[in-house]
Amino acid sequence: MENRVTADHQTEQWGVFELALDGIAEGNPFLEVRLAAHFSNKHRTIEVDGFYDGDGVYRVRFMPDVLGEWRYRTQSNRRELDGHEGGFTCVAPRAGNHGPVRVANTYHFAYADGTPYKQIGTTCYVWNLQGAELEAQTVATLAQAPFNKVRFCVFPKHYRYNENEPEQYPFPCLAKGSSQWLGSNKSEIRQGWRFDFDRFTPAYFQHLETCVASLGEIGIEADIILFHPYDRWGFSTMSAEQDDRYLRYVVARLTAYRNVWWSMANEYDLMDSKSMADWDRFFRIVQESDPNQHLRSIHNWREFYDHSKPWVTHQSIQRPDLTQVSLWRSQVRKPIVVDECCYEGDIPMGWGNISAREMVHRFWLGTVHGGYVGHGETYLHPHDILWWSKGGLLHGESAPRIAFLRALLEDSPATGVDPIAGVVNALPCAGKTDEFYLIYTGVSQPALLEISLPEGEQYQAEVIDTWGMRVTQGNRYSGRVDIPMPGKAYHALLLRRVQP
Amino acid sequence: MENRVTADHQTEQWGVFELALDGIAEGNPFLEVRLAAHFSNKHRTIEVDGFYDGDGVYRVRFMPDVLGEWRYRTQSNRRELDGHEGGFTCVAPRAGNHGPVRVANTYHFAYADGTPYKQIGTTCYVWNLQGAELEAQTVATLAQAPFNKVRFCVFPKHYRYNENEPEQYPFPCLAKGSSQWLGSNKSEIRQGWRFDFDRFTPAYFQHLETCVASLGEIGIEADIILFHPYDRWGFSTMSAEQDDRYLRYVVARLTAYRNVWWSMANEYDLMDSKSMADWDRFFRIVQESDPNQHLRSIHNWREFYDHSKPWVTHQSIQRPDLTQVSLWRSQVRKPIVVDECCYEGDIPMGWGNISAREMVHRFWLGTVHGGYVGHGETYLHPHDILWWSKGGLLHGESAPRIAFLRALLEDSPATGVDPIAGVVNALPCAGKTDEFYLIYTGVSQPALLEISLPEGEQYQAEVIDTWGMRVTQGNRYSGRVDIPMPGKAYHALLLRRVQP
Repeated sequence: MENRVTADHQTEQWGVFELALDGIAEGNPFLEVRLAAHFSNKHRTIEVDGFYDGDGVYRVRFMPDVLGEWRYRTQSNRRELDGHEGGFTCVAPRAGNHGPVRVANTYHFAYADGTPYKQIGTTCYVWNLQGAELEAQTVATLAQAPFNKVRFCVFPKHYRYNENEPEQYPFPCLAKGSSQWLGSNKSEIRQGWRFDFDRFTPAYFQHLETCVASLGEIGIEADIILFHPYDRWGFSTMSAEQDDRYLRYVVARLTAYRNVWWSMANEYDLMDSKSMADWDRFFRIVQESDPNQHLRSIHNWREFYDHSKPWVTHQSIQRPDLTQVSLWRSQVRKPIVVDECCYEGDIPMGWGNISAREMVHRFWLGTVHGGYVGHGETYLHPHDILWWSKGGLLHGESAPRIAFLRALLEDSPATGVDPIAGVVNALPCAGKTDEFYLIYTGVSQPALLEISLPEGEQYQAEVIDTWGMRVTQGNRYSGRVDIPMPGKAYHALLLRRVQP
Repeated sequence: MENRVTADHQTEQWGVFELALDGIAEGNPFLEVRLAAHFSNKHRTIEVDGFYDGDGVYRVRFMPDVLGEWRYRTQSNRRELDGHEGGFTCVAPRAGNHGPVRVANTYHFAYADGTPYKQIGTTCYVWNLQGAELEAQTVATLAQAPFNKVRFCVFPKHYRYNENEPEQYPFPCLAKGSSQWLGSNKSEIRQGWRFDFDRFTPAYFQHLETCVASLGEIGIEADIILFHPYDRWGFSTMSAEQDDRYLRYVVARLTAYRNVWWSMANEYDLMDSKSMADWDRFFRIVQESDPNQHLRSIHNWREFYDHSKPWVTHQSIQRPDLTQVSLWRSQVRKPIVVDECCYEGDIPMGWGNISAREMVHRFWLGTVHGGYVGHGETYLHPHDILWWSKGGLLHGESAPRIAFLRALLEDSPATGVDPIAGVVNALPCAGKTDEFYLIYTGVSQPALLEISLPEGEQYQAEVIDTWGMRVTQGNRYSGRVDIPMPGKAYHALLLRRVQP
C-alpha cells in the first residue's frame, strides 16, 4: 500500500490546517484505529484527535491560534499512521476572519481578535439536510439577513412540517423504515429503521462541514446541535458508548472550523432516554476533546439545565419572557442567549405564531435586559418549507427590524450592554455607565421620561422607532431631566455621551 | 324640643328606606348617641345601625330585599330616639333596578334578581372631590362609557397630579397645613394639618352619597375605597378606635345604596401604619355591621392579601400579568377582578402609560382566563385632570374596544365564562362546555387553529377583531377541526353552539 501524506504548508490564523494520511480501510476503522497529532509552537503543544474519513483516508484538522511556525507529529496504534512529522506556517488572517467567538466581559462575547460579537441568531434546524438547491437558497438568504449565528442539527429531524427523508444518514442504513408521520408514540416512530451505529457515513459529515464552512464564509456562527428528541430513526436512543464515540467524531471533524459553537441538545429535557448524568458527561467529553474550546451550551424545553456547571460557557435558553434575562444573568453570571422565545409565524402551535412586532419586541426586551436573542420563522408554506426548519426564504417582517437593531448594537459599547438601574423608573435601561444608556418602552407609551443622567456630562438623545426603524435626534441633556417622548409604544430612547 | 319623625311609606325593592329623627345636637353625638332599628318582615328581623347627620338629625337607612310589609322599631340610649315604631311597603323595583351585585357560580357575579353582572370597571380615585362642574362631567362621561363599576375613595388623595384641596373634609378641620406637594417624607407631608377625628363632617358624607346615588342612576356600581396611603392630612394614620368608628359610620350611611361595594383599601400594603390584624379587623367590622352584605375585597400594591379569608367575597388584584388569572381563581375559588393592570396613558410612571392596544389586550386576556378587568386612563393634561384620579373626559382609544368586549360578554353564558382545557393548544380558551368557546390569540397570529369541539354538536364560528371591533361569520364546525384564522394578532375565535 502506498502511504500518501498530504498537508497544508501554510494556514491563516484560525484557519483549517489539514493533514491527510492513507491507512487501512478494512475492518471497522472507526472502532479499531486511533489517531492523534501533537501540534507545537514555541513552548506550547496541543493534542488533536484525528478521524477516519472513509476510503482508507485519515485526517487530522487543526486551527492554529497564533502566527508563526508550527510542528506536528502523529500518534497511532497503526504503524502507517504513526510518527508522521511536519510543519506549516501560520500567517495573518484574511479580512473578515476574526477567529472563534469567546465569552467576554462575563455577559458578552467577542471574537478571538477582540472584535465584539453581538449575537443576533436564527434557527434553521435541518437546513443542511434539504438538498443542494434549497441549501444554496438558504445560504443566499442568510448572506442578506441580519443574523450572525444559525442553530442547526447534526441529525435529521422528525416533526410536523419535517417529514422528508434526508438524502443520506450519519450512520450506514441497514433497513429503511417509514418516512411518514407516525405520531408521537415512540415505539411506532422507530418502526422499521435499523442503522449500524458503530460506523459513520463520512460523506454525511463532509456535507455538514461544507455547510459549516459556507456559513463561515458569510460571517455566520454555526451553533451545532448535537442531540435532539425529534427522531424516527433511533439517533436519540443510541447506547452511551455510541453517543460518546459520535461526539468525539463530530468534535474531531469540526473543531478546526472557527465558527463552530456546540449545543449539546435542542430541548434536552424532552429526551427521556438521557439522564442528567448523560448530559454532564456529554459536556465533559466535548470540553476535553475540543482543543479549541468552542462555546458550549444546551437548550431547554421547560427546565433549565444548570448553567452554572463549569463546562457551560453561556446560557442557551428557551423561554418567552425576555424580562427575566437580567435575573438569569445575575443567577449564573454567564452570557444569555435566548435562542428560542417563540417564532414569527402563523402555524397553529403557540411557539410558532407570534407576530413580527412581538418578535422584534422580544429582541429589544432581551437586549435592554442585557442578553442576546434568537429569531425563527414559521409561516405555513404549501411545500412545508418553513424557515425555522428547512431554511429557504424569509417571508416575515421582523428580519429588517432585527437588522436595524443589529446596526444599533454594532455602534454600542464594545464591552457590551448591561442593565443599569437608577436612570429611569419602571422601564428597562441598559448600556454602559457614563457612556451609553438605552431605554426601551415596550408596550408603554410615555410622552415624558424622567431621566437621571450623571451630572456634569452631556448626552445626546436619540428617539428610536424600533418598528418604523427611524432615529430622531433629540436635544442634549445632563443630570436629572424630563425628556419628551412621542407617546407611542415600541420606542426607545438612546442617550449617548458627547464631549461638550 | 319638637321631636320630628319622618319616614318613607313606600320603598321599592333594593331602594333606600330612610327614617329621620330629631335628637340632641349638643355634646358629641357621634360618640355619645347610639341608635339602631330592627326591621321585620314575616319571620325575619334585621338590625340596622343609624347615624348622626348633623343639625340634630339622626337617620336610619334600610334596603328592603323582599316585597311586602315591613315594620321597624328604634333602639337608642337617648329616650327621644328610642322606641319609634312604624312600617312601610316594599314595592316592585323600577326598571333597571336589579338589586345589589352578589357572587354567583363561584367565580362570577349576578345582581340580586339573578341578572348576570359582567364586571367592566374603571378607576377615578377622587372624582367625587373635584367640585360640581367636573363631577357632573364625569357622570356624563360615565353615562356614555362601557363601565359598570367605578373605584373611588372616601378620603381625598395626595399624589402627583392630585395636589388640589377638596372643598371640604370628612372630619372638622382644626388647622390647615400646606396643600403643596411635599414629597414622600411622611413627617413632612402631614405638617400643619390637624383634624378632630372624633367628629364627622356630615355634609362631606352627604356629598359622597350623592355621588354613589348618581352612579346608581346610570347603572354603575360604586367600589368604595375605605382607606388608602396617599395622604397628607392624617386620614391614613388615625387611631384604631377612630378607624373603626369611621368604618361603622360609612357603612351605616351607605349600606342602603344597592350599588355599593366595599374595598378595604387601595394598595393596603403601602400603609405602614396598619398591620395585617388591622385589615382583618376592618373586614370583620364591615362584615358585621353591613346588614346588606355588600361585596368586600381589598386591593394590593405588591403583596396579595389572603383572599381565602372568609370575609373576602372576591379577589381585587393589582398585577399586570393577566395570564395568571386562572391560577389565582383556582387558588382561592373566588371571583377575580383585576382592578389595576396598568392604565392607558402617557405619564412617565410605568403603571400609567400602557398603550390602548395593550389595555384592550389585557381585558381580553383577563376575560379568557376567567376573570374581570378594570380600566384606567392617565394621559398628561394641562390642568392635571387625569381620568384615573379626577374623572372628566376620556381621551384614549381603549374605551370603545372595551364597550365592544362588554357587548360580547353580555351575549355570553349567564353563568359566566370559565377556562376550558383541551379545545385548543397553547392559546387561552374560556366559555361554557357544550355551549360557548372563546379563544383569544393575543400576540399570536395563527392562520389556522386546530380545535377540538364536542362530536355530534354544531358550532357557528365567529372571528373577532378585538381592536377593529369587527365580527366575521365563519362556517359551522363539529368535532376535531382545522379552522382558518386571519393570521393576525389580537383576534378571537368564538364558537357558539347552534341547533342543527
